[in-house]
Amino acid sequence: MDPLARLIQVLGRFPGVGEKTATRLAFFILRQGSEFARDLAQAVVEATEKVGYCRRCQNLTDIEVCMICADTRRDPNLLCVVEQVQDLRAIERSREYRGTYHVLHGAIAPLDGVGPDDIKVKELLARLSQENQEVQEVILATNPSVEGEATALYIQRLLSPMGFKVSRIASGLPMGSDIEYVDAATIAQALVGRRLL
Amino acid sequence: MDPLARLIQVLGRFPGVGEKTATRLAFFILRQGSEFARDLAQAVVEATEKVGYCRRCQNLTDIEVCMICADTRRDPNLLCVVEQVQDLRAIERSREYRGTYHVLHGAIAPLDGVGPDDIKVKELLARLSQENQEVQEVILATNPSVEGEATALYIQRLLSPMGFKVSRIASGLPMGSDIEYVDAATIAQALVGRRLL
Repeated sequence: MDPLARLIQVLGRFPGVGEKTATRLAFFILRQGSEFARDLAQAVVEATEKVGYCRRCQNLTDIEVCMICADTRRDPNLLCVVEQVQDLRAIERSREYRGTYHVLHGAIAPLDGVGPDDIKVKELLARLSQENQEVQEVILATNPSVEGEATALYIQRLLSPMGFKVSRIASGLPMGSDIEYVDAATIAQALVGRRLL
Repeated sequence: MDPLARLIQVLGRFPGVGEKTATRLAFFILRQGSEFARDLAQAVVEATEKVGYCRRCQNLTDIEVCMICADTRRDPNLLCVVEQVQDLRAIERSREYRGTYHVLHGAIAPLDGVGPDDIKVKELLARLSQENQEVQEVILATNPSVEGEATALYIQRLLSPMGFKVSRIASGLPMGSDIEYVDAATIAQALVGRRLL
């Protein structure tokens, strides 16, 4: 295979990138020339070589303990459990949370053959047994989906008997949404979760 | 900058890739692991190092003369002039054309400061003066845009006095389109270019 066809083929392995987009990206790389190509190649290899999981919270990091775990200003009493690193980043962007995290790297999905042992639940338990004087509340911030709810329920059943206060992030109407256009399941959750004013 | 942030930044330099998509691509690379990363890095560097312009038609190639120019079954009497390599590939996909090509790598666009010397017009003339016994017809397949039309006109004015038969690809209704929804300029071109049956 010639180098251009090979580049298009490799780029086409990205999710959501078909042959057309892969071709467009390949031509962009060729137009940019060798400096951009070297930057890209180096960034790709360095990221996969140097980035691993935080020993404590399983967040991605290029050091042993991630920036959030190492930050002494974070509240050690609060632990927020998320499915993915992307979820952690979304919560950080909200600037609403100052506690620590635990990343499961997945959710329990029996239909896809993903059980509790396939996600970082063991690591969560190990960590809580070490830190149990510190953590006051575990916030389950898995997705409001079938898998996310099942994962939250599973972890709640493990942690409650151990004496931890366990909470679940609220489901309801997204800010700025129009009730007329919100799906029925979300409206139902918003009603169930209503708060007295 | 940590390796993950750096990878996201480099990926964000692709056209049409914002921070969100760059982050998604970076996480995909990390999940795939080091083999995919090495494949990608190598494909990127090899493509920019090995792929250059065909000596004859300016198509992209990793050999001196591209596969199309080297193919003796192609009709040397027909020469199709296109703006970009992508246009050549689109024409190849139509399987309607069996002649050779010349890629200009751009179109004349005075407003963007692109003149005739900034695209491969010199190379076209040099080539035609060498091959003039062979080429019977030059088909101008630049885009039906202001720049494409200007470029076609410019080349036609150079080649006609040299005795070449020069043609322009047809503009008109796209196949499968509905006249009701086709823009006025296209309908006007389809009427001007009508053919007797």
